[in-house]
Amino acid sequence: MSMTPFSEWHGKAHGVMAAVLTPMTDSLEIDHKGLEKHCRWLLANGCDGLAVLGTTSEANSFTVNERLALLEHLAQSGIPGEKFLPGVGCCAMADTAALARQALAMGAMGVLMLPPFYYKNLSEDGLFASFARTIDMVGDARLRVYLYHFPQMAGVPIPNGVIERLLKVYPGIVVGMKDSSGDFAHMEEVVRAFPGFAMLSGADHLLLPLLKSGGVGCITAVANVASALAAEVCAHFRTARGEAAHSMLSSVRALISGPSQVAALKEIMARHSGRASWRNIRPPLMPMTSEAGEALFRHIAETGYDLPPCV
Amino acid sequence: MSMTPFSEWHGKAHGVMAAVLTPMTDSLEIDHKGLEKHCRWLLANGCDGLAVLGTTSEANSFTVNERLALLEHLAQSGIPGEKFLPGVGCCAMADTAALARQALAMGAMGVLMLPPFYYKNLSEDGLFASFARTIDMVGDARLRVYLYHFPQMAGVPIPNGVIERLLKVYPGIVVGMKDSSGDFAHMEEVVRAFPGFAMLSGADHLLLPLLKSGGVGCITAVANVASALAAEVCAHFRTARGEAAHSMLSSVRALISGPSQVAALKEIMARHSGRASWRNIRPPLMPMTSEAGEALFRHIAETGYDLPPCV
Repeated sequence: MSMTPFSEWHGKAHGVMAAVLTPMTDSLEIDHKGLEKHCRWLLANGCDGLAVLGTTSEANSFTVNERLALLEHLAQSGIPGEKFLPGVGCCAMADTAALARQALAMGAMGVLMLPPFYYKNLSEDGLFASFARTIDMVGDARLRVYLYHFPQMAGVPIPNGVIERLLKVYPGIVVGMKDSSGDFAHMEEVVRAFPGFAMLSGADHLLLPLLKSGGVGCITAVANVASALAAEVCAHFRTARGEAAHSMLSSVRALISGPSQVAALKEIMARHSGRASWRNIRPPLMPMTSEAGEALFRHIAETGYDLPPCV
Repeated sequence: MSMTPFSEWHGKAHGVMAAVLTPMTDSLEIDHKGLEKHCRWLLANGCDGLAVLGTTSEANSFTVNERLALLEHLAQSGIPGEKFLPGVGCCAMADTAALARQALAMGAMGVLMLPPFYYKNLSEDGLFASFARTIDMVGDARLRVYLYHFPQMAGVPIPNGVIERLLKVYPGIVVGMKDSSGDFAHMEEVVRAFPGFAMLSGADHLLLPLLKSGGVGCITAVANVASALAAEVCAHFRTARGEAAHSMLSSVRALISGPSQVAALKEIMARHSGRASWRNIRPPLMPMTSEAGEALFRHIAETGYDLPPCV
């Protein structure tokens, strides 16, 4: 088995992608300048791509118009559009399609698509129909869809039967998956079942084993503060150097992951950058207490991991 | 214990409320005229109120603009605004607030509010903050909020601790709950814990026991086709006549309820009204097969229940 051929992945989701945090003003509006700055910092510190408007970005706490405006601002930022993999999945197909069109307009590498996540216990026919109709609504051959499998949060898993049908009807359009289930056996199964279908881990500690099993990278929350470590894993995943990075990355992740991980990441960024506004977060998510934040920051330092300096 | 004093409930959610189906055109746009007609049919056949834009209405499959337009059309229909209890709960607080303002503008009796339902395992602080901030965004003392507790679908339960805080901070604004958990012990607990807080069952077969325990009515999907039966339960819940209606209503419900119940109800309406367009439904939900529809319609007839004639 050869190394994952990252050189072939230009313009495709691969390597280290951050599920980019969304900085907010004190009135909880999107801080577009702050977001642009954070994106540049991530690209300078190991990120191959930027999955904005995902779970960690609090995308679903924004209206669709706010999300469209966020993409428009990034399109004007000078950061190459192909670095972005915007999350677009809404409950209503027309909203998902509108966001996907905006992503195409900015030249994004693709879109990360949650299934419609309000109704549960969907039939495979219904789930397939919702993806298919949405893709048809976008109606653009340049579209690249990465399915977003996150049963614990969305409550709607994406079964292999649906992937199979989508690959048949939309070859070259439906191209990969972010798997945030944390179920490594599931990732391996999908990699084996669908050759060429790009598998990205939603969990940092599964990045190394996934690369060994034929996956192409990760899209994670923790990459907001530890992309350099994840990049080290990607570059050296077959050697002791990669194992060491994997071990430290897993320790950092263990301190952060959980129901409060968006708050934890914003707290780390606030302390690291000295900008208190990083703590701003929209309900239903809540900021960390100052005590919890202090302990978290100390524990991360104890792992030996140093965040790259902010500019 | 006296009968539930429905006379005191004028302009408040009480009695039989249908979680109103949304008829669609063949291109899956909202059929506003068809919806108005269905609303009038329901009011003529036992419904005290109309919970449009709920789970059964496929509300979350519509964009916010489509939902605002639906409310605008109903406001122009001549049906008294106070008959409506629109569902407004979205993932983004600003969307929920916009829908609530539109409900107020039409003179609705109140709004049915899901919690933001993307993030799971929310803290009580976060859930309270999301309701509170949304109510503050609406900023109108006429607002009446009925919380929508549906853990199986939303994935976000509304704990009693949150109700308690809301009642303290927003007395007269947060006034009741639709409980679709199907957990009768939970309904009774809430009724006991919060005197004056209006409890409405999301399940038809719990309407009768809930009325006996101090609840005020129901908001159900099955009321789209069986509101007359539910009205009979409400009017006679302490006598054998109410028990008989309860028994038939429970049988009808058992045939319909489940993951495909929106499709089942639309199928029944299609067969009963002779209008095939009633089968139109947005993915991720799917219409019933013709075989399943035929069997369902036959089984309902076998219960002895006759749907009131369509005009």
